[in-house]
Amino acid sequence: MKHFFNRKDSIVTEALDGFLATAGSGTLARLDGYPEIKVVLRADWDKTKVSIVSGGGAGHEPSHAGFVGAGMLTAAVSGEIFASPSVEAVLAAIRATTGPAGCLLIVKNYTGDRLNFGLAAEKARAEGFAVEMVIVADDIALPDIAQPRGVAGTLFVHKIAGHLSESGHDLASVAAAARAAAKDIVSLGISLSSCSIPGQAHEDRFGADDGELGLGIHGEPGVERIALEAASKLVAIMAERFAARLDPHSRYALLINNLGSVPPLEMSLIANAVLSSSLARAVALTIGPGHLMTALNMNGFSLSLIRLNADREAALSAPVGPHAWLPAKPVRQPVVVAVAKPASRDAAKTTSRDAGVERLITAICEKLISLEEPLNSLDAKAGDGDTGSTVATGARSVLDRADTLPLADRGATLATIGDILGTSMGGSSGVLLSIFFTAAAQSLKGGAPLGMALLAGLDRMTFYGGAKVGDRTMVDALEPALKAFDASGLEAAAAAARRGAEATAAMRKAKAGRSAYIGRQLDIADPGAFAVAEVFSAVAAMFAPA
Amino acid sequence: MKHFFNRKDSIVTEALDGFLATAGSGTLARLDGYPEIKVVLRADWDKTKVSIVSGGGAGHEPSHAGFVGAGMLTAAVSGEIFASPSVEAVLAAIRATTGPAGCLLIVKNYTGDRLNFGLAAEKARAEGFAVEMVIVADDIALPDIAQPRGVAGTLFVHKIAGHLSESGHDLASVAAAARAAAKDIVSLGISLSSCSIPGQAHEDRFGADDGELGLGIHGEPGVERIALEAASKLVAIMAERFAARLDPHSRYALLINNLGSVPPLEMSLIANAVLSSSLARAVALTIGPGHLMTALNMNGFSLSLIRLNADREAALSAPVGPHAWLPAKPVRQPVVVAVAKPASRDAAKTTSRDAGVERLITAICEKLISLEEPLNSLDAKAGDGDTGSTVATGARSVLDRADTLPLADRGATLATIGDILGTSMGGSSGVLLSIFFTAAAQSLKGGAPLGMALLAGLDRMTFYGGAKVGDRTMVDALEPALKAFDASGLEAAAAAARRGAEATAAMRKAKAGRSAYIGRQLDIADPGAFAVAEVFSAVAAMFAPA
Repeated sequence: MKHFFNRKDSIVTEALDGFLATAGSGTLARLDGYPEIKVVLRADWDKTKVSIVSGGGAGHEPSHAGFVGAGMLTAAVSGEIFASPSVEAVLAAIRATTGPAGCLLIVKNYTGDRLNFGLAAEKARAEGFAVEMVIVADDIALPDIAQPRGVAGTLFVHKIAGHLSESGHDLASVAAAARAAAKDIVSLGISLSSCSIPGQAHEDRFGADDGELGLGIHGEPGVERIALEAASKLVAIMAERFAARLDPHSRYALLINNLGSVPPLEMSLIANAVLSSSLARAVALTIGPGHLMTALNMNGFSLSLIRLNADREAALSAPVGPHAWLPAKPVRQPVVVAVAKPASRDAAKTTSRDAGVERLITAICEKLISLEEPLNSLDAKAGDGDTGSTVATGARSVLDRADTLPLADRGATLATIGDILGTSMGGSSGVLLSIFFTAAAQSLKGGAPLGMALLAGLDRMTFYGGAKVGDRTMVDALEPALKAFDASGLEAAAAAARRGAEATAAMRKAKAGRSAYIGRQLDIADPGAFAVAEVFSAVAAMFAPA
Repeated sequence: MKHFFNRKDSIVTEALDGFLATAGSGTLARLDGYPEIKVVLRADWDKTKVSIVSGGGAGHEPSHAGFVGAGMLTAAVSGEIFASPSVEAVLAAIRATTGPAGCLLIVKNYTGDRLNFGLAAEKARAEGFAVEMVIVADDIALPDIAQPRGVAGTLFVHKIAGHLSESGHDLASVAAAARAAAKDIVSLGISLSSCSIPGQAHEDRFGADDGELGLGIHGEPGVERIALEAASKLVAIMAERFAARLDPHSRYALLINNLGSVPPLEMSLIANAVLSSSLARAVALTIGPGHLMTALNMNGFSLSLIRLNADREAALSAPVGPHAWLPAKPVRQPVVVAVAKPASRDAAKTTSRDAGVERLITAICEKLISLEEPLNSLDAKAGDGDTGSTVATGARSVLDRADTLPLADRGATLATIGDILGTSMGGSSGVLLSIFFTAAAQSLKGGAPLGMALLAGLDRMTFYGGAKVGDRTMVDALEPALKAFDASGLEAAAAAARRGAEATAAMRKAKAGRSAYIGRQLDIADPGAFAVAEVFSAVAAMFAPA
């Protein structure tokens, strides 16, 4: 696995500095003790309330520094990657944040953290500080282990203790609530990869079609190898493990945690799977999905549940300073809004006849159908050789519906042709021509003469399509033709279209349209521009004095 | 690459449902048009303000649905993964959200999005809606391309337009501000991997030691292959590319975007590298780092910069409903707080003499040093064979400093021994014994008699260490010994310690301490418990009636 870092020995301090300079800017500070003492603390802390301190090894970001702020942690102590912080670092955090109200340490159940936070607590007590510690052991991966790991469920304890401290509760009641909460939390993780540590050789123990259930957050192997199945099946396995640990008469908050590299798209899909599983019955509040307690780049997620009561629900739902905390959301029926019907169509769009217009449309369509092979052949030199087929398809679709067109209303006719091309022609050119006719129709209905209306259509087509004259597209013929038509009539338009189409043969660099990536002179005309010239020639011939 | 999903054809709708049921719960709704129409919109929208609609292919989460909410988007239209939404879907979003104030479409510069949003805009106009469109083309990967891609800088436009709409500006001024903003945005991406699509075969075109500069957000190849270097060097290359595009007299906001699977730890490190690079001079505000516009699981990031003026700074800094938007933070000097000195040590801790205590300490230490080999040998049967060396190291470190101990003060002596063992002994046992002596000292200073104080130390040691009697640790000897000492004196303590140590030989399952993972009966005593018994025997012999 490849990583973005500079030197192994400064990864954590560089990351903390980056965090403090961005997300933490304006609200957080750090202790001046690098590299040994890596403590992030609230810049606005006045020690009048209970200090809430947590931490542990790095590699779990945004845990723990990301949760420092009003209503959550007072300080976070970071070790190196996956290594407990030193006793001195924890002690420095306690000294820096603890006043008469005392300090609660929230520690995940790993030996190193227990011992280092524990010794720091005892030393702090010897210095006269009131310090309590709560140990969180929420992982249910190993059902009969005496010392379950502490994983992402620890965040519930941060949130509850932080809220109670912020609300002015004393150390004894904050600690009691935190301990009671810790007892009511269960978590389970699943992953499709192990995590890799920047600068260390990594061997993934996973196969191409498997995953592990019951992982910790330090790359340690999961408890069970499982086959890679559909997300809903994996979630069902997890739901079953949880079922034995949940009180069927209680409501729970669910925290959905990205362990590292699961794309946000998939995390939302996982959330949907969880809320469609048997677990959903128990869940009243959700937190996440998102990155809350990661294991570097592990391609996995964890679910954590805490039994709710009114106090916990209030604590979990209270707003906090740290943006990394994801707001608790009530589980509700989704709001699904009916799709509005289109505004009623112009009455003139009902079928009507006009023999002259019908002849014109028929002639244009037949001309384009007749060009299928020549256009394909031109296109094959530069593109995928289907311009003629696309154009012919569009022309046939209009011709097929010619007897349903509102021919007596030119605006409605243009609009309907736009609708037909937008749905039946296919490709970018179908949409572009649909835009052209739709916008031209709108302009015509607004009172513009035909020439102006067609130029308005061109304007919209080039705005959305991005092609300009010189880009070797149909615009090279269409723009001069429409300008000439508006100014001088059909004959001039046909001549201008022809000149424009011929000019495309000399164009070196195609900047838009299907030939956009050729970048060399082709010495043949652009097929779209050629088709435009042919159409104008045909129409001019129809209206030419006999 | 392995992915969490169910069926390919429902990935996007399942993810949108999961999003709506979690992050979007209570504030967002969707249109009833699955699978074709995938539109998320504000549930509280009353059409009195300008509707701000964006969208594009899926795979960029939290873009775009994640940014729907007060102060940002009114609706987001999603296509399938990396595929533009249909004209009908965009049109449905316009119809559902647009009132007399009109609608602004914000579109990233990809042909499919331009055309489908464009045709929808023209159709909506034909239906009587006032619709404007702004196209964002912020990518500077290809400096001379006529149609740069739209990437994460598009979010600046969402934020600015959303803020102006929320503040009650009319369509013309919202659109004008959005277009002006779009012209002042530059973005560049870098990655160490391509992204993989759930359910599609994936071939990574990257080698083990390279990356690409100038990537889009759809897995298309980057413009340049680059060597995998230190993060600061990669950032320096990007800073150089930006330099040519920035006005040296302007201030910029910087958006740091995780393209997918970069661990949050590394994203913060990257942020630090950027703010330590030549780019930093230009940056007054930062947004991120975080997942803002991803490309599935791409292991890369992008930087986007927008030239600031007072209006843009106000717009970017305004609070919004969507949590996925990361608050803009001012670039400031980091706040570094001096580490507090330890509270002044007990005066009695200055060196003092007591011949009896000194003899006792010396005897215990010498006893433990003499046990180095037997303890190592016992430990080798279950662990790594170094218990004796660790214990001897601790004993030597105390012995070495015996003439500096405050021997006349028993509490201070215990505390100092705790300090020595915590720093010099090493291993878990050093910290555990440090906790034991530190807590016992504190209890003794509080007025407890020696027996009670030692039991208080034991209580703390077992709380932090997690071992109980029966777990095959030194606690099996220490706990009965200290209880017997408190109740009946030294001789009883020595006998109890011996019985406790002997009992460990029969213990089947070790639950804590160094033998925790053996899980079978060893038929030999735990070395820690054996050492405790030996110490109590030695001390009892010293005080035995001659």
